[in-house]
Amino acid sequence: MDRTLTRHFKSVIMAGGSGTRFWPKSRRLFPKQFLKILSDKSMLQMTIERVLPLTPMEAVYIVGNRSHKALFEQHAPKCDERHLILEPVGKNTAACIATIAFILSGEDLESVLFILPADHWITHPERFRDTLFQAGRAAYQEKGIVTLGVPPTFPSTGYGYIKIPSSDTANSSVSIHPVEAFVEKPDAETARAYLASGNFYWNSGIFVTRADVILNEIATYLPELHRLLSPLKTLAPEKRDDFMESVYPALPAISIDYGVMEKTRRAMMIEADFGWSDVGSWDALYDLSPKDTQENVTEGLTILEDCRGCLINSHGRLIAGVGLQDFIVVDSPDATLILPRGRSQDVRRIVERLKEEGLEGIS
Amino acid sequence: MDRTLTRHFKSVIMAGGSGTRFWPKSRRLFPKQFLKILSDKSMLQMTIERVLPLTPMEAVYIVGNRSHKALFEQHAPKCDERHLILEPVGKNTAACIATIAFILSGEDLESVLFILPADHWITHPERFRDTLFQAGRAAYQEKGIVTLGVPPTFPSTGYGYIKIPSSDTANSSVSIHPVEAFVEKPDAETARAYLASGNFYWNSGIFVTRADVILNEIATYLPELHRLLSPLKTLAPEKRDDFMESVYPALPAISIDYGVMEKTRRAMMIEADFGWSDVGSWDALYDLSPKDTQENVTEGLTILEDCRGCLINSHGRLIAGVGLQDFIVVDSPDATLILPRGRSQDVRRIVERLKEEGLEGIS
Repeated sequence: MDRTLTRHFKSVIMAGGSGTRFWPKSRRLFPKQFLKILSDKSMLQMTIERVLPLTPMEAVYIVGNRSHKALFEQHAPKCDERHLILEPVGKNTAACIATIAFILSGEDLESVLFILPADHWITHPERFRDTLFQAGRAAYQEKGIVTLGVPPTFPSTGYGYIKIPSSDTANSSVSIHPVEAFVEKPDAETARAYLASGNFYWNSGIFVTRADVILNEIATYLPELHRLLSPLKTLAPEKRDDFMESVYPALPAISIDYGVMEKTRRAMMIEADFGWSDVGSWDALYDLSPKDTQENVTEGLTILEDCRGCLINSHGRLIAGVGLQDFIVVDSPDATLILPRGRSQDVRRIVERLKEEGLEGIS
Repeated sequence: MDRTLTRHFKSVIMAGGSGTRFWPKSRRLFPKQFLKILSDKSMLQMTIERVLPLTPMEAVYIVGNRSHKALFEQHAPKCDERHLILEPVGKNTAACIATIAFILSGEDLESVLFILPADHWITHPERFRDTLFQAGRAAYQEKGIVTLGVPPTFPSTGYGYIKIPSSDTANSSVSIHPVEAFVEKPDAETARAYLASGNFYWNSGIFVTRADVILNEIATYLPELHRLLSPLKTLAPEKRDDFMESVYPALPAISIDYGVMEKTRRAMMIEADFGWSDVGSWDALYDLSPKDTQENVTEGLTILEDCRGCLINSHGRLIAGVGLQDFIVVDSPDATLILPRGRSQDVRRIVERLKEEGLEGIS
């Protein structure tokens, strides 16, 4: 590899999520990135190992929430303490990315950041790294902010989309495209139109940018955020925690997509053709998992009698099912969830109800 | 009440069941008669309290399995130790009834035994006792073996039936009928014909007989059983355990219905019109239970979102359901059962599978 290029490469793993779509396995204090989903390693561990051939451990950074500190030390024991950036409170992705961009720009203004959510599934890691490498070169040389766009395989209403010029789609030799628009999660009819058009891609949430480039865009579109976090560029690592503690509560909570990507003229898109899922729900997990002859996906101690198309996830206890067709059952030490497949978006309603009913302890 | 009659009355509670139709709540070592079903008292406790106005505690006897000794002492603390007859091994109902009939005939040959399974639900206890009283009088005076027949309310294939002469059904003033036949559990079509005919009743398993009368019939139809158990008539109570330990393994395991009732010419039937169920399954429990506005029956910690017609029985942990229609979910410390309503007869398949797969610890 070209060291004049790759020495700038940094993997930035965004692990601040506290989502509850995998309740009751994921919890406020044990979110999805720490779950062993589809593997005997956690999603965070898999995310780290996946980038190591591209960026050595010394070039891996993790941004997460302070409440998960012990979990990070357990799941990423080789990560340099100074490379673990712990936010005192989550302020969405713009703050997270501005923070790490300032920190890395202090060492190398031309740092190339691979911004990687910690909780995605990737089927072909080699192709994934090839794509990142190409994106990194474009980001470095052309100063683009290169997002990874996934060719849609069904009319999903659960993802945002990236629109590229329709003239580009015929030319398959071009893999990096200008971006015409970022669009939010569509309704079903619109999603079908996007799929048919051929020039709409799923927004994977993965993107690649130079530190100086993204900071310039943040200065333009989110000047308050830029001003408040700029001291990080020259701050000694041991003073970071106190500084973030004092400044984070005042930061605007906004996503990088909404705050920068939808506005910048530097956005580019590279096709992400490596088998991707954000594993956003129990339904998505069922779809990704290998099935037995009855189309069931089971983990742990289960006895199924006349059951088909089910995801049954036990946890030290026995789950016994009779006559279940297309169901999801997930067990945990203090709660069991049961729902038909296709309804897993409604798990958030259960978590809301837990809060309403004073059962945060189980959320 | 007529003391010359009632002084012969004895309630014999048959509590030897080890059924698993209420798995995972009931277990081999914790069967249904000890469960608090439909009440804050166990079914055994309810059975005892239900007969007390008819027979005082001094006239209550319990026949059960030795492995449940501690449970009996806990659920029937007022039962005289000599009235608790513990079988070393279950040998079906003929052995159980012969045992208690011999023991009671030692005190009073004309003892009138109310043979009562410990795990039935009765809606109107007063009418139940009135029926027992009438049956007791007929058993005493006419030396009949008087079974309680329940007017069927639907074409059940889960119960045996009692056939009375069709000429009797028109005459509503007669409440005690001769028995034409005991018939085994029918198929669905036959059950519909029984229901339509008007002279078929469900066999409740409750019957009333004098000790000397039933022992005579046992001598006739099950002579080996009679011969082996006859020493009990004169045996001192403190020697009972050792005697039963030595003789029980050799006893024929046969039901009183099959061994005696289907053959005897002393069988009579009295209408049991007091609201009866053997609560034979989770489905039966759902049917008997009061429902909320969504037709759900819940116990313990549950959160249901868009669920209807479900029985959800939790046990210290949370059960969360989304979009469940007509389902049964039963939680226990080491196992959770999930099935659609109407399938609860298949629970026994799960218990069989537990044995096949070496998981007897959970059965």
